[in-house]
Amino acid sequence: MANEESFAEAQRRSDAMWKSLGEDGGAHTLLSGDRPTGRLHLGHYFGTVRERVRLQEMGVNTNILIADYQVITDRDTTAHITEYAYDMILDYLAVGIDPERATIFCHSAVPALNQLMLPFLSLVSESELLRNPTVKAEQEASGHALTGLLLTYPVHQACDILFCKADCVPVGKDQLPHIELTRNIARRFNERYGKVFPMPVGLLSDTPLLPGLDGRKMSKSYGNSIAISMTAEETAKLIRKSKTDSERTITFDPENRPGVSALITTASVMTGRDPEEIADSIGDAGAGALKRYVTEVVDDYMAPIRERRAAFAAQPALVREILHEGNRRANEVADETLAQVREAMGMVY
Amino acid sequence: MANEESFAEAQRRSDAMWKSLGEDGGAHTLLSGDRPTGRLHLGHYFGTVRERVRLQEMGVNTNILIADYQVITDRDTTAHITEYAYDMILDYLAVGIDPERATIFCHSAVPALNQLMLPFLSLVSESELLRNPTVKAEQEASGHALTGLLLTYPVHQACDILFCKADCVPVGKDQLPHIELTRNIARRFNERYGKVFPMPVGLLSDTPLLPGLDGRKMSKSYGNSIAISMTAEETAKLIRKSKTDSERTITFDPENRPGVSALITTASVMTGRDPEEIADSIGDAGAGALKRYVTEVVDDYMAPIRERRAAFAAQPALVREILHEGNRRANEVADETLAQVREAMGMVY
Repeated sequence: MANEESFAEAQRRSDAMWKSLGEDGGAHTLLSGDRPTGRLHLGHYFGTVRERVRLQEMGVNTNILIADYQVITDRDTTAHITEYAYDMILDYLAVGIDPERATIFCHSAVPALNQLMLPFLSLVSESELLRNPTVKAEQEASGHALTGLLLTYPVHQACDILFCKADCVPVGKDQLPHIELTRNIARRFNERYGKVFPMPVGLLSDTPLLPGLDGRKMSKSYGNSIAISMTAEETAKLIRKSKTDSERTITFDPENRPGVSALITTASVMTGRDPEEIADSIGDAGAGALKRYVTEVVDDYMAPIRERRAAFAAQPALVREILHEGNRRANEVADETLAQVREAMGMVY
Repeated sequence: MANEESFAEAQRRSDAMWKSLGEDGGAHTLLSGDRPTGRLHLGHYFGTVRERVRLQEMGVNTNILIADYQVITDRDTTAHITEYAYDMILDYLAVGIDPERATIFCHSAVPALNQLMLPFLSLVSESELLRNPTVKAEQEASGHALTGLLLTYPVHQACDILFCKADCVPVGKDQLPHIELTRNIARRFNERYGKVFPMPVGLLSDTPLLPGLDGRKMSKSYGNSIAISMTAEETAKLIRKSKTDSERTITFDPENRPGVSALITTASVMTGRDPEEIADSIGDAGAGALKRYVTEVVDDYMAPIRERRAAFAAQPALVREILHEGNRRANEVADETLAQVREAMGMVY
């Protein structure tokens, strides 16, 4: 009940923020990002990445975080981390993140951001940290003991959000507790030491989750995801090999026909066509025809993205420079915020 | 049993470190510090501060930390924090810390030091953090809920120690668990990512604890402590008003005569004279004579310290410059260590 109420409240705040973004995007600051644990796929793209591009186009001050320290919340290794980071940057650039307008950065490269951990940790209690449902779920999924970093990573997320004074953060419903913690930290800091931080709002979206090609959750480990970086050939092969069923007539029925329906949904998000209509238009032509149609649709959609990705991939020095420039800008912002935090706390010597 | 064994092991390590320090002080690095929550008193001085001066004189690379973020582990305010910090620096300078040889710094001024929290938190488990006996005791004493910062401050101490690659840290027996955690963090980092950190040793000392003038634990809140910054008049008044007992003949009996014995102990640590011998030499002259003697002894001991303190207090710009220079040096060292940490973790972009 309390959760339902707080969700309704979060939804209201999100709606109001969307309205305000529509009226004056330039008055707002966005923080969003990903863990560099692999290449981005269409689930990421239709989930949050496309939203970022849209917000960037609305004039929002856009900050894209490569959350490299989050890789070690539940892993013992940082192997391939720079490779993954640069792949992610290529994905961002490919889908339309514009480094002239958006700041792409790694939090490990911004010491003043990370220093916010110290004052922020003093504003939360151990029991609040332990109550976070995502922390518990991630710890169970990892099969590891709960590390200090996994326990405190929602506080580190608050540092990510507040260092640049972001007031909007695209989230799924399950991430609302993180936003709530960030809001508590901002409120407590402001009350205790004087106003420095905005109250960020979790931006909810009504985009339905894009399933993997087999109808399960899209995940690299299931082999059911189309990565943004895949070639037309790799994509065609993945779609061709995807599991459908023996029924010839194509219908949209996610529960009973997960494979067929996932293919239809994929085509639907890319074309904006209604899933039922897509199913009807294939009809008795069967799964082979559906797969050819989906391949074509994905190719059409991805062609300009693939082209931009290839162009940037051919210029590694430029891509490095984009990240360095993003890190430089993030440091400038973080240094300024930390100076304000020190001033507010009376820690200027 | 396990604790006894690990204490014996810690004692052996400490003995070996003292030996090595005696042979070649310049090969070692020291980290020690205080929370800026008030002025230093003789308990601090005879407990750890004098030891730091001694180690500095042995040629050890000496780092003195003003642990300003530790103030908010269990408090809701940073009021007077800069005032306390500068008072502490005056105390350090007064007792002989030499800013040409020692680095005096605040950890809040060193972002790269604080950034080490992120990788280090990933190397400890929640249960290790909760097991720390000092964290529990401090939380109970504070009467507050356990904050995230109090829970994780032993990890922050590891950052303080390891950023400058300190290999010796003067500690009391009760702080050995902190050193053990720092050693675990250093070991795990080195094993996982490659050797960056030394294994620091807790330097145990056989100096007995100096009690307050009433025989209880010395504490500003009990009004039983002689601050380094006190004038001769203030000190004389405090000693004159200290509680003794009605028995005329002076004897050294800490259990039954806490006030008289604390006065004797104070004179003893300052003169090196045996407590029994001091008691005998006063004998039937009574508490008044004892107090006059202790006042004289303290005055003799403190005179040059008070003189140096007054000289520095008259030059606030110089004292600020000493801290700024210390912070600058600490940043240089921390930036270099963080660069090595990033290199070891493969997080160089």
